[in-house]
Amino acid sequence: MFDDEYFMRLALNEAEKAKEEGEIPIGCVIVCNDIVIAKAHNQVQTLNDVTAHAEMQAFTAAANYFGSKYLKDCTLYVTLEPCAMCAGAAAWTQIPKIVYGTQDETHIQIDRRKLLHPKTTLKGGVLEKDCKQLLTTFFAEKRKNK
Amino acid sequence: MFDDEYFMRLALNEAEKAKEEGEIPIGCVIVCNDIVIAKAHNQVQTLNDVTAHAEMQAFTAAANYFGSKYLKDCTLYVTLEPCAMCAGAAAWTQIPKIVYGTQDETHIQIDRRKLLHPKTTLKGGVLEKDCKQLLTTFFAEKRKNK
Repeated sequence: MFDDEYFMRLALNEAEKAKEEGEIPIGCVIVCNDIVIAKAHNQVQTLNDVTAHAEMQAFTAAANYFGSKYLKDCTLYVTLEPCAMCAGAAAWTQIPKIVYGTQDETHIQIDRRKLLHPKTTLKGGVLEKDCKQLLTTFFAEKRKNK
Repeated sequence: MFDDEYFMRLALNEAEKAKEEGEIPIGCVIVCNDIVIAKAHNQVQTLNDVTAHAEMQAFTAAANYFGSKYLKDCTLYVTLEPCAMCAGAAAWTQIPKIVYGTQDETHIQIDRRKLLHPKTTLKGGVLEKDCKQLLTTFFAEKRKNK
C-alpha cells in the first residue's frame, strides 16, 4: 500500500490546496519509515515570499518534527521537479531520496546541474500525468482569465 | 559614503552576530536607494533549519517590507558568495545586483553554474580579507576546541 504512488497522491492533495488558494499547484510530503512527517503546498502569492515553495516549508517543518536539521532517513515526494533553490536546500538537508511527479521543462534538470547531495537519489515520473495536468490546466485557466 | 564597502561593513556586523551565537559567521543586508531594508545573519544552528541562511531570511524580510516578493531595485550585500539555495532564491526575487565579500571555495561559483537571474549582476571581493578572515578564524577555533 505504501508505495511511491501512494505518497505522490498525498503530495497531489497538497497541490490541490495550493490551487484552491490561487497558487501554482505544487505540493509535497516528506515521509520517514512510511510516516508522513511534513506536508506543504506552494504559498508564494499568499505569503508574498518567493522562498515559500512547498519543499522549503516542508524541510522546515520536518526539521522541527525531528529536532534535527538533517533529514537522513526521509523521502521527499513533490509533484513538480524541484527548482534550484529547493534542490540546494535538499542538498543541505542530506535527504537521501527525492521522488517527483512531472519534470520542470523550463529549466535544465537538477540532477544534470549537480545541485543535489551526492548521496541523494532522484526518481521522476511518478503519477506524472496527474501532476502535469494539474499544472497545465491551472496555466490554461490563468491565460483564459487574462 | 554609501559605497559597496560601507554596506559590506554592515553585512560584516551581521556576520559578527552569527559568530556570537556560535553560527558560521555569515551576514547580509539588502539595500534599496541607499536605505537598508533588511539585515540578517546565519541562524541554521539556532533555528535547527538548513533554510535559515542569512540571505533567505533577508529575502523574506525585504519582501515583507515592500509588500512585494520582487526586489527589483535592491542590492544584496553578503559576506560569503551565496550557495545554490540562496542563489536560486535570489533568482526568484529578480534582485538586480549581488555583492559578496569572499568566494565560497567549496563549490563551483554560482555565476558559472547559471543559477542567477539573467539580469542580475554579481560582484565579488568587497572587503574580501575581512570576510574571509572571520570565517577562517571561526573554523580554526572550531577545530581547536574539538
